[in-house]
Amino acid sequence: MDEQALRALLESYRSGAVDLDQVVQRMRNLPFEDLGFAKVDHHRAIRCGFPEVVYCEGKTVEQVVAIIEAKVAGGGNVLATRASESAAGAVADRFPQADCCSLARTVTIRQRDPEPCPGHVAIVAAGTSDLPVAEEARVTAEIMDQTTRTFYDVGVAGIHRLLAHSGELQAANVLVVVAGMEGALASVVGGLVDRPVIAVPTSVGYGASFGGLAALLAMLNSCASGVTAVNIDNGFAAGYSAALINRLAQTGT
Amino acid sequence: MDEQALRALLESYRSGAVDLDQVVQRMRNLPFEDLGFAKVDHHRAIRCGFPEVVYCEGKTVEQVVAIIEAKVAGGGNVLATRASESAAGAVADRFPQADCCSLARTVTIRQRDPEPCPGHVAIVAAGTSDLPVAEEARVTAEIMDQTTRTFYDVGVAGIHRLLAHSGELQAANVLVVVAGMEGALASVVGGLVDRPVIAVPTSVGYGASFGGLAALLAMLNSCASGVTAVNIDNGFAAGYSAALINRLAQTGT
Amino acid sequence: MDEQALRALLESYRSGAVDLDQVVQRMRNLPFEDLGFAKVDHHRAIRCGFPEVVYCEGKTVEQVVAIIEAKVAGGGNVLATRASESAAGAVADRFPQADCCSLARTVTIRQRDPEPCPGHVAIVAAGTSDLPVAEEARVTAEIMDQTTRTFYDVGVAGIHRLLAHSGELQAANVLVVVAGMEGALASVVGGLVDRPVIAVPTSVGYGASFGGLAALLAMLNSCASGVTAVNIDNGFAAGYSAALINRLAQTGT
Amino acid sequence: MDEQALRALLESYRSGAVDLDQVVQRMRNLPFEDLGFAKVDHHRAIRCGFPEVVYCEGKTVEQVVAIIEAKVAGGGNVLATRASESAAGAVADRFPQADCCSLARTVTIRQRDPEPCPGHVAIVAAGTSDLPVAEEARVTAEIMDQTTRTFYDVGVAGIHRLLAHSGELQAANVLVVVAGMEGALASVVGGLVDRPVIAVPTSVGYGASFGGLAALLAMLNSCASGVTAVNIDNGFAAGYSAALINRLAQTGT
Amino acid sequence: MDEQALRALLESYRSGAVDLDQVVQRMRNLPFEDLGFAKVDHHRAIRCGFPEVVYCEGKTVEQVVAIIEAKVAGGGNVLATRASESAAGAVADRFPQADCCSLARTVTIRQRDPEPCPGHVAIVAAGTSDLPVAEEARVTAEIMDQTTRTFYDVGVAGIHRLLAHSGELQAANVLVVVAGMEGALASVVGGLVDRPVIAVPTSVGYGASFGGLAALLAMLNSCASGVTAVNIDNGFAAGYSAALINRLAQTGT
Amino acid sequence: MDEQALRALLESYRSGAVDLDQVVQRMRNLPFEDLGFAKVDHHRAIRCGFPEVVYCEGKTVEQVVAIIEAKVAGGGNVLATRASESAAGAVADRFPQADCCSLARTVTIRQRDPEPCPGHVAIVAAGTSDLPVAEEARVTAEIMDQTTRTFYDVGVAGIHRLLAHSGELQAANVLVVVAGMEGALASVVGGLVDRPVIAVPTSVGYGASFGGLAALLAMLNSCASGVTAVNIDNGFAAGYSAALINRLAQTGT
Amino acid sequence: MDEQALRALLESYRSGAVDLDQVVQRMRNLPFEDLGFAKVDHHRAIRCGFPEVVYCEGKTVEQVVAIIEAKVAGGGNVLATRASESAAGAVADRFPQADCCSLARTVTIRQRDPEPCPGHVAIVAAGTSDLPVAEEARVTAEIMDQTTRTFYDVGVAGIHRLLAHSGELQAANVLVVVAGMEGALASVVGGLVDRPVIAVPTSVGYGASFGGLAALLAMLNSCASGVTAVNIDNGFAAGYSAALINRLAQTGT
Amino acid sequence: MDEQALRALLESYRSGAVDLDQVVQRMRNLPFEDLGFAKVDHHRAIRCGFPEVVYCEGKTVEQVVAIIEAKVAGGGNVLATRASESAAGAVADRFPQADCCSLARTVTIRQRDPEPCPGHVAIVAAGTSDLPVAEEARVTAEIMDQTTRTFYDVGVAGIHRLLAHSGELQAANVLVVVAGMEGALASVVGGLVDRPVIAVPTSVGYGASFGGLAALLAMLNSCASGVTAVNIDNGFAAGYSAALINRLAQTGT
Repeated sequence: MDEQALRALLESYRSGAVDLDQVVQRMRNLPFEDLGFAKVDHHRAIRCGFPEVVYCEGKTVEQVVAIIEAKVAGGGNVLATRASESAAGAVADRFPQADCCSLARTVTIRQRDPEPCPGHVAIVAAGTSDLPVAEEARVTAEIMDQTTRTFYDVGVAGIHRLLAHSGELQAANVLVVVAGMEGALASVVGGLVDRPVIAVPTSVGYGASFGGLAALLAMLNSCASGVTAVNIDNGFAAGYSAALINRLAQTGT
Repeated sequence: MDEQALRALLESYRSGAVDLDQVVQRMRNLPFEDLGFAKVDHHRAIRCGFPEVVYCEGKTVEQVVAIIEAKVAGGGNVLATRASESAAGAVADRFPQADCCSLARTVTIRQRDPEPCPGHVAIVAAGTSDLPVAEEARVTAEIMDQTTRTFYDVGVAGIHRLLAHSGELQAANVLVVVAGMEGALASVVGGLVDRPVIAVPTSVGYGASFGGLAALLAMLNSCASGVTAVNIDNGFAAGYSAALINRLAQTGT
Repeated sequence: MDEQALRALLESYRSGAVDLDQVVQRMRNLPFEDLGFAKVDHHRAIRCGFPEVVYCEGKTVEQVVAIIEAKVAGGGNVLATRASESAAGAVADRFPQADCCSLARTVTIRQRDPEPCPGHVAIVAAGTSDLPVAEEARVTAEIMDQTTRTFYDVGVAGIHRLLAHSGELQAANVLVVVAGMEGALASVVGGLVDRPVIAVPTSVGYGASFGGLAALLAMLNSCASGVTAVNIDNGFAAGYSAALINRLAQTGT
Repeated sequence: MDEQALRALLESYRSGAVDLDQVVQRMRNLPFEDLGFAKVDHHRAIRCGFPEVVYCEGKTVEQVVAIIEAKVAGGGNVLATRASESAAGAVADRFPQADCCSLARTVTIRQRDPEPCPGHVAIVAAGTSDLPVAEEARVTAEIMDQTTRTFYDVGVAGIHRLLAHSGELQAANVLVVVAGMEGALASVVGGLVDRPVIAVPTSVGYGASFGGLAALLAMLNSCASGVTAVNIDNGFAAGYSAALINRLAQTGT
Repeated sequence: MDEQALRALLESYRSGAVDLDQVVQRMRNLPFEDLGFAKVDHHRAIRCGFPEVVYCEGKTVEQVVAIIEAKVAGGGNVLATRASESAAGAVADRFPQADCCSLARTVTIRQRDPEPCPGHVAIVAAGTSDLPVAEEARVTAEIMDQTTRTFYDVGVAGIHRLLAHSGELQAANVLVVVAGMEGALASVVGGLVDRPVIAVPTSVGYGASFGGLAALLAMLNSCASGVTAVNIDNGFAAGYSAALINRLAQTGT
Repeated sequence: MDEQALRALLESYRSGAVDLDQVVQRMRNLPFEDLGFAKVDHHRAIRCGFPEVVYCEGKTVEQVVAIIEAKVAGGGNVLATRASESAAGAVADRFPQADCCSLARTVTIRQRDPEPCPGHVAIVAAGTSDLPVAEEARVTAEIMDQTTRTFYDVGVAGIHRLLAHSGELQAANVLVVVAGMEGALASVVGGLVDRPVIAVPTSVGYGASFGGLAALLAMLNSCASGVTAVNIDNGFAAGYSAALINRLAQTGT
Repeated sequence: MDEQALRALLESYRSGAVDLDQVVQRMRNLPFEDLGFAKVDHHRAIRCGFPEVVYCEGKTVEQVVAIIEAKVAGGGNVLATRASESAAGAVADRFPQADCCSLARTVTIRQRDPEPCPGHVAIVAAGTSDLPVAEEARVTAEIMDQTTRTFYDVGVAGIHRLLAHSGELQAANVLVVVAGMEGALASVVGGLVDRPVIAVPTSVGYGASFGGLAALLAMLNSCASGVTAVNIDNGFAAGYSAALINRLAQTGT
Repeated sequence: MDEQALRALLESYRSGAVDLDQVVQRMRNLPFEDLGFAKVDHHRAIRCGFPEVVYCEGKTVEQVVAIIEAKVAGGGNVLATRASESAAGAVADRFPQADCCSLARTVTIRQRDPEPCPGHVAIVAAGTSDLPVAEEARVTAEIMDQTTRTFYDVGVAGIHRLLAHSGELQAANVLVVVAGMEGALASVVGGLVDRPVIAVPTSVGYGASFGGLAALLAMLNSCASGVTAVNIDNGFAAGYSAALINRLAQTGT
C-alpha cells in the first residue's frame, strides 16, 4: 500500500463506502506497508546536513561513480569512504568539485553551505601509522559541518608530547582518540579531560596485536570514565558519533 | 616539591637569592612533582557535579564504609557501584540519607542540590535480565544531575513494542541501549534516531554468547551510524558517558 | 495514540474537521504508536497452539510462580524452561495439573487440547549426558502439539547402534540431533536422511571442548547437507524450530 | 561382496551347499560390504529432484568440467557452487544450456522439468554486499524446484524498509536471512514471522567482525524463537535446508 | 529385524515361500537393523582384555554403582574414571575386590588374569600437580594388561632430572608425557626417543595458560617428530592409546 | 671439549698428572659439552631407516637443493616436504632418481633397500580436498619402509562408502584419518577399529572452520577411544608416528 | 650410574682393567645418568641467595608444611606463594620466625643474612585491586635480597599522580609495573624511564577483560621500548626476574 | 606557554606586577605546556648511546630515506628495522657507511664510537626459520654497544646440541631466546641459567601455531623462573631490553 492507496481508502470511508471499523482494521497493518518513509528520511537528512555516505570497498569503479551520481542528484553533501585510488580518480574526473583525501581514502562533495558550530572536535592520534584512520574521522566530522583540531603523533611512549597539549585537549567538546598497538592513549586522554572520548582502535601493530584486538580490548577496559569505543579502524564511525555529539552542544537540545 | 617549596623558591627569587635562570631550570621539572593537583581536580569535580565513585567489588564491607565516609566528607555526591547487599546495608546504617538500589547494586548519597538540564537521557533495555545493567546506567546518569526516561523490555523479537516508543526515543538527546544475547537492539535503535547511542552488551545469554562477547561484537559491528560501545555489563560507563554528552547539550560548549 | 484516538481522528475527518492531507500526515507516524498489536499477537499465539514460554534462570521462585499465573490466565499452554527443582515444586503446588520433567528442567501446563499432526519429530542424542538438552527439545515440541520419537545413546563411537535405527530415522519429518564432545552425530545423521536436521551442541565434554564450542563448530561445518544449528545446550530452540517445521508438513502451507 | 556374490551365497544355501548358520554368519558382516547402495541413493536423488552438487573451490577448470560431465550423464539437475569466472565459462562452452549466475558464483544445468510446490521460500538480505551469499541460497533452492521471493537491502539500520514487507515475509513457508556485520536482521525477522528462519552470517564487515564471527554469534544467540544458523557465507547450506523444509509443506509428510 | 527374523527369512526362501529377488531386497536394508552386533563387540572386548569403561562425572553415586554392577556381570575388567570420593567408596563397599586410586580418581575391578606383554609403557610427568592425570593414564594402561614405568617430577626447568633417565625412557615401547604450563616436556622427550610419544596437556597453570590451552597448542606444535596429542587432562585417552600401541608390539600384527 | 680432549684428560689421569677427584669434577660438566653425539644419532638414523627430512617452506630453491645434496651424501633415505613445484623440479634435475609427488608436495630419494614389515598403515581421507595432506602422510610412512593402503573419499556424509571398507580398515595395524570441515571421520573410524588412530585435521572448509580449528577440536574431543591428534594439515607428523607404531608391531619390542 | 660408579670405572681404567676406548664409550652416555647434579644446583642456590620456592595452590596444608620443613632443613631462604590463610597459619605455627603477608598470600622464612645491593627495584601498581600481585612481586624480590620501593595507586586515569613520582621512578634500576583493565600503565612508565620494565597483567577488570587477557595483550604490544611481560597475575615471576636483573647491576657481571 | 612566557611571568612577579598567589596559580598548569622537554630527551638519548629507531613497515622508500637523513643529522647511531630490500638499497646509496643486514631486515648507521661493556648478551635461536627475528635482536643489541654471542639451530628436539653449549650460555649476563612452533626452548634455557631470559615467540609453524600464539602462550607459562616475554616476532624489543639489562651490569647502577 502506498500513499495513493491510503488516500483512496480514506476517501471511500468519507463517502461511506467503508465504515469506521473497516478503516481501523486496515490501519492496524499500516506500519508494515510502504508509505514513502524513505522520502521523509531523505528530506530530514538533507535538512540536517547529514552526508550521504558511500562505502566503496567491494564495489567497482563504475558502481562507485554511478552511486555517487545518484547521491549528488539528491542535493546533499556526499561522503565516500574506503575509496581506492582509481575510484577516487574516476569520481574526481566526473565531479571536478570533489575533494579527495588520499590518506583518509575519502572523497567528499559539498553541495550545501557549512553551518559551523562554535565548539570543536579534537582528533588525537598516537602514531603516523594511525593517520589514515584519524583522517577518515576528521573528514567525516567536517563534512557534517564540524570544526576539528588534530593532535597527531602524541603516543604515550613520550607522554610529554601529549601533556604539552593538555590545555587544548580540554578545550574540545568531544575527542576522537585513534591508537593501535596497546591503545593506551585513550585511557590517558580520558583521564585528562571531562568530555566524551570516542576511542578508535587501529590494526597497527604486529604479532599479538591480532589485527587490532589488543587495542580494542584495551579501550573497552579503559580505567578512565567517559570513554566509549567503535570498531577497529572505523574512523568514519568515530567521526560520525563525534559530530552527533558536538551538534548537541550547538543546538542545546 | 610541594606548594610550600614552590612559594619559597619564588620568594627567594624575588629576594634575589636565586636568579631567573635558576628558577626556570627548576620549573622544567615541575610537572613531575606533587603540586597538589589532586586537590584541584577535587575542587573541579565538586563544582561540576561529578560524583565520587566507589567500585565495591573485591572490597570488604568495612573498606566500603570507610571509603564512603571519606568521600562524603569531601562534600560531593557519592556513587557506589557493584555493592553487595551487606555492603549496601552497612552504608545505609551509617548514612540514613543513602539511597540503595538493589537491582542496580548501587548506593548513592546526594549532598548537592541537583541542577537538572532540559534534555534527557533515554535508557533502553531488551529484556528483564538486562535490568541490573540498565539501572546502573540510570542511577549513574541521575546522580550526575541528568533526567532519564526508561524503556524496558523492548527487545527486537517483538519489534512492535519498540516501535511503539519511537517518537519518545527520538526525543532524547542521547540513548543508552542495553542488551545481551545477540545485542541487535543497539542497531535497531541506532537506525531509528539521529542522536548518539551508547551500546552496553550484557552477559545475559548462554552457550555461545560467551559471557557477553556475542553482544559486544554485534554492537561494535553495528550497521547503524552513531553507535559506540562500552565494556560488557558496564552500565556505569554508559551512564557516565551519556551524562557527559547531555551536559554538553545543556551548556552549549 | 491508541485505537480510540485513531477512531476520533477518522471521525473528525469524515465530519470535515480535518482534511485529507492532515489525516495522511498523521498516518505517516502511525507505525511508531501503540495500536494494540501485542493483543493481536497474543490472540494468534493462542489460536496456533504456540506455548507461552518462561525462561526461569535468574528468576526467584516467587517470580516464576507469578509469571506462570499470568500466563495460565491467558488460556494458552505454558512452558517453563531451566526450572530449578524448587521452582518446579512451587509451580506444581500451585497448579496440580502441571507436568514437571526434572531431567529436562521443564514445567508444562496444558490448557488446550492437542491437535496432533500425522508426521513426527525425531530426537536423537549421542550420550546419556546429553539427555537434559534432548529432553528439553522433546518437551518443547510436544507442548507445541508435535509427536516425537526419541533415539538416545546412539553416539558415533558405536556406529552400529545408530545404523540399527536408520529406517526409523528416515521416517521422521524433521530431526533434532543432540551431541557434545566432537558433535559428529549431526553429520552422520545428516548423511542418512533427506529431511531437515537441527543440530544442538551440548557443553558435555572436558578440556578442549571449551564448553561446547568444539561441538558447535563441528555442527556448523557439517559435511552433510541439510544441517542447521542452534546455540549450545539450547534444546528449547531446537524443539521450537522442529515444531514450526513439522507443522508446515501438517498444514501444507 | 557385491550383489552377485550375495545371490550366489543364497543360491548355494538353497541348494544345501552351505547351511543356515553359515549364511547367518556371512550376513552379520554385510553392512560393511558394498551392495550397491550408492546406486539406490542415486536413483532416489534423481527421483526427488535433489541436485548433484559440485563444490568448485580448489579444483582446476578441467576437473570442474569433467566432474560436471559425469553428473550430467547421470540425468539429474546439476549445481556447481563457488565457480570462478573461468570455470563457469568453460562449463558454459561445454554445455550451452548451463545457466551461470556470476553474482552467486553458481552454474546450474536443469535436466528435469521443475515440479514447483505452492508455497515459497523468502530470501532476505541486509545489504548489497551480502548478495552473493543470498543469491547462492536462491539458486540452490530454485534448482531444487522451490519458488523463491527475494527481499534485498532491508537491513535493520532502516527498519522501515523491512517492515514495509512484513506482510510478504509472513506469507513465506520458510525464510533464509542473510546478514553480515552484527547480523541483527535474523532476530528482527524471526520476531515478525511464525515460520522457520535459517540465518546465514556473512563475512561482510571489517575489524572486529572477525570474518563473520560477530554475525554468527549473534545469530546463534538470537532472542527470537525459530531461528537456526548455518556456517559463515554458506548460502548453499541455507538454500538446501530451506528447500527440504518447504518440500515438507508440499508433500504433507 | 533380529537374528531370528533373519533365520526365518532364509528358511522361507529355501522353502520357496519367497524368491531370491525378495531376499536380496531385504538384505539391502540389513545394515540398518539390529542383528545383535553389540553382542559381537561385547565378546571381542572380553576376549581382548579391553576394559569396560565408566565415566563417572555427572552421574549420581547410585547410577555409578548400578552401571558397574552391570559391567561386572559381563565378566570383563572394569574401569571407572573421574570417580568422586563418595562414588569410589560406594563401589568399594559393593565390590570389596575393587581397587581405588584416589589420586587418579579411578576404580578398577579386575576379573580376568592379566596377560602382560614384554615391553612397557613409560608415563612421564612434569610436576606434582600433573600426577592425577598421569596416574589416570597409568591405571588405564595397567587394567589393559600393560606394564608401566613412571617418571614423575621431571619437568624441563631442571633438565638434568629428565636426562638422568634418558636411557630408561629410550627403553619404553611407547611414552605418555603429561605436562601443564608450557608443555615443553613433550618436545624434549620426543627428541630423546625414537618411539611414539602421546602428549597429554593438563590444566595446571594460571593466567594465560587458559585452562590448558597453552600446553595443548605447544604439544600440537612440537618440533619433535613422533608426538601426537590428546585432550586436556585426558589421561584415560592417553593410557588407552598407549595400551593399543604396546599391544601391537606384543602381538606383532 | 671434544673427544680428543676427553682422551687427553683420561690419559693424564692414568699418568697421574691429575687425580681422581679432578677427573670426576670435569665429568660433572660433560653432558654440556660436545662429544660428537650428533654423529651417534646420525648413525642410528641410517641404521633404522629413518628418513632425513627437509621442510622446504620458506627456503629458496637453491637452499633446498643444497640441503638435499648434503643429506644424500649421508647415505640415508631423504624426504622433502612442502616442496614447491619449482623446488621439486630443481631437485629432480639434480637427482634423476628423485620421486616427486606433486599432490603431496613431497620429494623422496631412496638410497637404502626397503625392509617392509608384514602389517600395514591405513590412510583414510574424507574428501578430495584432503588428499594433499593424506598423501603427505602416505609418502612419509612409505619412505620409512611401511606398507600403506589408502581409503579416500569416504566422508561420513555418505556413511555407506566408509562402512563398505570396515573389514579392510580393521585389518590395519594403525590408521591415519585425515578430515577437514567437522572432522567427524576420526570418531567414526575410531569406533570401528581397535587399533590406534592418528587424526589429522585439515584446513579444508570455510567460514567457521577457522582454518582447521573446528576439525582439530572435534578430533581432540573424539568420543571414540584410541584417537590421538596432530597439528592441522600436518600429514608428515601423522605418517611419521604411524610408521613408529607399525614398526613396533614388526619388531615386537 | 652414580658418582661411586664413575670413580670405580676410572680406577679400573687406571689399573688397566678397561682401556681408554671403553672408558670413552661409557662417557658418551654420561649426560643421561645421575651424577648428583641436583646437589650441585642445590649448593649454588644456597650460595647465591636464591630462595627455595613452594607454590601452595592445589596442595593440602599438611603437604605445604611438610615441604617447607624440608626446604628449611636445606638452610636457604624459603618463599611460599599462593598460600591460603590456613596454610599460612599452619606454617606460622610450625615456624614462629615465618613472615606471612596476607595481601600477597606469601610466607617467607629468612635463614641467611641479607646482602643488600645499592640499587633498587621499583614496584608500580595501577589500582588497589592490583596490590596482591604487586605485593607478591615485592616479597619475592626482597627475599632475594633486593631493596624495593613501591608506587601504588598511580593508574593512568589520573596521570598526575604517576608523573609526580617520575623522578623516583627514573632512579630505579628495574621496574615492575602491575596493572589490570587496559594495562596502559606499563607503556606510560616505559616511556618515562630508560631502564628495563617488567609488566605484570592482572585479572582485575570485568567483561571484555577476559581474565586479564586485555592487559596482557596491551603489555605485549607496548609502544614503549624496554618492556617485557610475564603471565597474568604472576607477581612472583616479575619479582624473580627483577631480582636477577638488579643483581647484575650489583655484581657488574 | 613557552619558556619566554615563563620568564616574562617571573619577571613581572619580581617587579610586583603579579603577586605570589597568582604565580603559583599559573604554575599549577605548567605540566601541560611545552617547555622543550623533547630537546632534553633528545640530548639524553645521544649521550647514552640509545639508537634513533625507524620502523620501516608501511613507509615508502622516500619516506624512509628522508627520516633517516633527519636522524643522521641528529648525530646519534641510527637503526632502521623491517626494511624492505629496496628501502635498504636506497639508504645504502644515500649513506655508503650504512650497514645492511638482509636477514634481519635492518639498516644501521654508526656515528658514535662504541663503548663496549665487559659482559655479553647471548642470542639463542631454535631453528633456521627463526633467524630473521634472532638477527634483529642481535643487530639491535650491538648498535646499543653490547657484545653478543649467537647460538643458532639449538632447538629442543635435539637437546644435545643445546646442552653442548650450556657452559657458554651460563656465561652470558642476559639471554634472548627465539623460538617458534611450541616455544619450548625458552623453558629449557631458563632452567639452565640463573640470568634473566627474554623470550621471543616467532610466527614460525603452521596450523595450530596460530601465527605464533602457541609459542607466545608457552613462553608466558614457562615453568622456569626468570623468563619474560615480548611480542611475536619482535626481535627488536628483545634486543633493546637485553641491552638495557646488560648496560646495568656495566654501570653498576
